[in-house]
Amino acid sequence: MARKPHDSPDQPRVGEGRLDRRGFLKHGAALAAVTTPAGVQATQAGGDLPWLHVPGQPFSAYGQPSPHEHYTARRIGANRAVAGNGVSFTPLEDLDGTITPNGLHFERHHNGVPQIDPAQHRLVVHGRVRQALSFDVKSLLRYPMRSQMLFIECGGNSNAGWHAEPIQRPAGSVHGLVSCAEWTGVPLSILLDEAGVDPGASWVIAEGADAGAMNMSIPLGKMREDCLVALYQNGERLRPENGYPMRLIVPGWEGVLHVKWLQRLEVGDQPVMSRNETSKYTELLPSGKARQFTFTMGCKSLITSPSHGQTLRQPDVYQISGLAWSGHGRIARVEVSADNGKHWTDAVLQSPALPRCFTRFRLPWRWDGKPAVLKSRATDQAGNVQPERAALIAERGRAGYFHYHAIVAWAVEDDGLVSHTY
Amino acid sequence: MARKPHDSPDQPRVGEGRLDRRGFLKHGAALAAVTTPAGVQATQAGGDLPWLHVPGQPFSAYGQPSPHEHYTARRIGANRAVAGNGVSFTPLEDLDGTITPNGLHFERHHNGVPQIDPAQHRLVVHGRVRQALSFDVKSLLRYPMRSQMLFIECGGNSNAGWHAEPIQRPAGSVHGLVSCAEWTGVPLSILLDEAGVDPGASWVIAEGADAGAMNMSIPLGKMREDCLVALYQNGERLRPENGYPMRLIVPGWEGVLHVKWLQRLEVGDQPVMSRNETSKYTELLPSGKARQFTFTMGCKSLITSPSHGQTLRQPDVYQISGLAWSGHGRIARVEVSADNGKHWTDAVLQSPALPRCFTRFRLPWRWDGKPAVLKSRATDQAGNVQPERAALIAERGRAGYFHYHAIVAWAVEDDGLVSHTY
Repeated sequence: MARKPHDSPDQPRVGEGRLDRRGFLKHGAALAAVTTPAGVQATQAGGDLPWLHVPGQPFSAYGQPSPHEHYTARRIGANRAVAGNGVSFTPLEDLDGTITPNGLHFERHHNGVPQIDPAQHRLVVHGRVRQALSFDVKSLLRYPMRSQMLFIECGGNSNAGWHAEPIQRPAGSVHGLVSCAEWTGVPLSILLDEAGVDPGASWVIAEGADAGAMNMSIPLGKMREDCLVALYQNGERLRPENGYPMRLIVPGWEGVLHVKWLQRLEVGDQPVMSRNETSKYTELLPSGKARQFTFTMGCKSLITSPSHGQTLRQPDVYQISGLAWSGHGRIARVEVSADNGKHWTDAVLQSPALPRCFTRFRLPWRWDGKPAVLKSRATDQAGNVQPERAALIAERGRAGYFHYHAIVAWAVEDDGLVSHTY
Repeated sequence: MARKPHDSPDQPRVGEGRLDRRGFLKHGAALAAVTTPAGVQATQAGGDLPWLHVPGQPFSAYGQPSPHEHYTARRIGANRAVAGNGVSFTPLEDLDGTITPNGLHFERHHNGVPQIDPAQHRLVVHGRVRQALSFDVKSLLRYPMRSQMLFIECGGNSNAGWHAEPIQRPAGSVHGLVSCAEWTGVPLSILLDEAGVDPGASWVIAEGADAGAMNMSIPLGKMREDCLVALYQNGERLRPENGYPMRLIVPGWEGVLHVKWLQRLEVGDQPVMSRNETSKYTELLPSGKARQFTFTMGCKSLITSPSHGQTLRQPDVYQISGLAWSGHGRIARVEVSADNGKHWTDAVLQSPALPRCFTRFRLPWRWDGKPAVLKSRATDQAGNVQPERAALIAERGRAGYFHYHAIVAWAVEDDGLVSHTY
């Protein structure tokens, strides 16, 4: 699909499309309509739009999106027999910026959303500790807190990338098991110190208060380093589907470790070897062995616009926009290609690029009306570079399921339709 | 109410309360309950809580807060005769972190919330320009965008501070006409360049599409420097009560300039002298003259916990937490006093402290059970220091209404009740 690039000494031109960090106006036909004095006068006179002539709606105690935005919703993929088992995806292609609003944060539940009365909920810390402790919400609210903007990504996000053929679904419905929010909670190190951890302890088993008592094992060192028991999400108390009234936050590590409805932390010297860390959330390799405890989410990016299902109406300048993130730290660089990876141009990163947080990247692109393949490639501060799909498969084989983080490619056909391609 | 401080060579002790940036455990009685082996076993066995025994609720397309958090709501103060005229306050004392979730962003409407069909809405740019332009939502979405975390504060926020007696209401219900969100939109400079502004132009009049056609004047230089036409708020499209489908963002300047439902920008060489920039949103001084066009919001802070209406149950360690912000840039420092301003200790600022954005500050405090007065004092990067109320009144007189940004004082009585004091 790639064509020979137009070379030019003074402009970065890449493949069929020209990418330019700086310019917009100098490339762009005006997108606005020129309007006449009569048109301006009509606006000044109040026009004929009904809302200009009647008082608006009154105030609301808790606001909701416009009914015109009803399509901006999580896409639900649940087990037909067990309604509470499955996922819902954040519609990444309908959003901009870096924050995921709480109503659209992705969900992954193994046994539904428990309807917890916060007055009855307790977090018990026990095992290899000097004294077992029990914390209710009110007591946790009195501890020192920390706030941090962090992405959470499901270990199974983007796993359709392992399919032999590119899946034809919107960007968010494939890659939207990742969201980004400001989480506020109590550093685990404080609670562990208060319980008094035995010197020989090395693992903590975290358990949720859903009816499945979902549990996962986390190294003690990580728990002490930067984990939180979160009580607030984007300023307000957690949402039920995100662990209300308290959730474990494990910065940069896979989503399943961020145990929701946290009710028990057992300090010990070995992992629990639960279903979700043995048969699931592990990576089967070509050798037939499986990697276990691959905690850190890889360096990854995704163009959200243009993306699958969108249509470019005519040859013109378009704004490429997307998200990058890495469990290893800050995003250092995102490159964009319009010729299926032959040439790359640095995108502009939204500042500040925070560690383990979504970073928005943007770059204008002139589409000449010919077929093109758009890709983005992220590099993090630790030097990890997002791999091409072929490289990931060479390393991990074709039987993978978890931790897919390869470059995503969108094909633009000559009629402007954008679809997923390999 | 202030007492002699306990001086100590090795600890900052301030007034009746001891403030300590570093410590918590070393001061604190454990807040958790010690639990028994039987208690732990009961938790491990699944306890008797109903949600541990039945599958949880299914997935949702757009999530909502827990019903147990229904009290976390905007407090509405509307004109009894005109339901759409008034304000709703963000409940700052119920929130933590720095983001205001969209459902709780404060509102100030002059004529209610228009129910706009985005397909029919237009933004017209006209006046002293080469060509008048009309932008619809779809065309704006194709322009380059920028995302920025910014507070918006109503010029009338905290105006009860001018009252002779301290108003006895929760912190948010007095000071909650301020919120903070990530706004994403098109830089005004691009739209103005496309229209082609006359060299002699100096002002832009911005008008909303509410039935009152609310309008305000903004210097052209500010518009070019950093203003946005925002389309997204915390990742999703704007909420109706925050200007859907498009809103002017004027970083660090008073809220009324952030014209919602933006429909018209008229480029000219003088302000429009509308009601909201002549009889309102101006500052009457002791001389009888009024200041006009005081755009930049002052350097300000507020302790949100403990705050009015809360009760400290017993002498113990408490976490002081609050918010600071300044229209002039980053918050550089927040000091906290527990003895009505005799002694001050630096609070810990949540990083990153972004310009013109909420900055969360925190500091532990040991309450000894005696009366205390808590205050916070912010300093911004430009060196502006939040004034004491007496200093603000000395400068501005007693007939003020807008731009109140003095230090807020909370009195802790010996029974632990917290109330507003001067």
